[in-house]
Amino acid sequence: MFTKYTNLSWPSWVNLYCFLGRLLFDRWKTMDGCVFCEIVAGRSPASVVYRDESCIAFMDIGPINAGHLLVVPIRHSTYLSDLDPEVGGVLFRVAQRLAAAVRKSGLKVEGINLLLADGEAAGQEVFHVHLHVLPRFHGDGFGHRFPPHYGQRPPREQLDADAKVIIQSL
Amino acid sequence: MFTKYTNLSWPSWVNLYCFLGRLLFDRWKTMDGCVFCEIVAGRSPASVVYRDESCIAFMDIGPINAGHLLVVPIRHSTYLSDLDPEVGGVLFRVAQRLAAAVRKSGLKVEGINLLLADGEAAGQEVFHVHLHVLPRFHGDGFGHRFPPHYGQRPPREQLDADAKVIIQSL
Repeated sequence: MFTKYTNLSWPSWVNLYCFLGRLLFDRWKTMDGCVFCEIVAGRSPASVVYRDESCIAFMDIGPINAGHLLVVPIRHSTYLSDLDPEVGGVLFRVAQRLAAAVRKSGLKVEGINLLLADGEAAGQEVFHVHLHVLPRFHGDGFGHRFPPHYGQRPPREQLDADAKVIIQSL
Repeated sequence: MFTKYTNLSWPSWVNLYCFLGRLLFDRWKTMDGCVFCEIVAGRSPASVVYRDESCIAFMDIGPINAGHLLVVPIRHSTYLSDLDPEVGGVLFRVAQRLAAAVRKSGLKVEGINLLLADGEAAGQEVFHVHLHVLPRFHGDGFGHRFPPHYGQRPPREQLDADAKVIIQSL
């Protein structure tokens, strides 16, 4: 965790301030103000469809399409790196079960996207891990914007080099 | 499975043709022609970063950003509905571990998206389940397009009604 907010090339006092500042920021985000923790605790309203000992699922209040659900760990986890991998596995299995239920429900659905944003740069807006179960249909108006370079295929040597640095970090 | 391709309001011969046609289409997609099955079997090249008894992960050959990975079940599953939920759980846990590795790798990454498309309407292009692990950074040019109605909040009664039909299908 320490290395996430610090850099050994910076002076030590900069690292100390960054670390303490980020620690306070994370703490603030995990306090009572977390909207999903409020739902878990029953202090905020939600249209709940599922709950077990490790996760809860409820309707997104700003749905992209009708039936848009969020699967959320009961225990606060700000980022994927804070999430118990066993709970991560449960989130996916529950999302899979909910995807099947949404398909059977009679709501308009021809496909499903599962989406998770980890970190602000990835579009995370609520800092409590959540997996979207998003019903899709042709012409629903949702989609992706791609970078200008998208579609170019890097040479195999580049992919192998990227794979190598990832393997070394596993 | 039968109900996916048929509709009781259609004449029975239409249902029969639809069912048989779809069955052949699915079979074609699960045959040797499946590009991910070819990678699993070692008959097609891939920059593999991880493999265990139930899943494999390799570099996307058309990456949105450097470090873009796909986590894929070893056993062919066309859709989420065909995927053993236990294997689904493994896919997520492996994606979580790979996300951490990508963050540590030195590649440009400030956030991670996990993305899965189930069905053509959801943007699925390879018909073998795959979970994208997509490194993100500010200004990378990737993002979402939203439907015109997005941002409007449905009344709680609507969300509760949607929740109810999903619960009934669980």
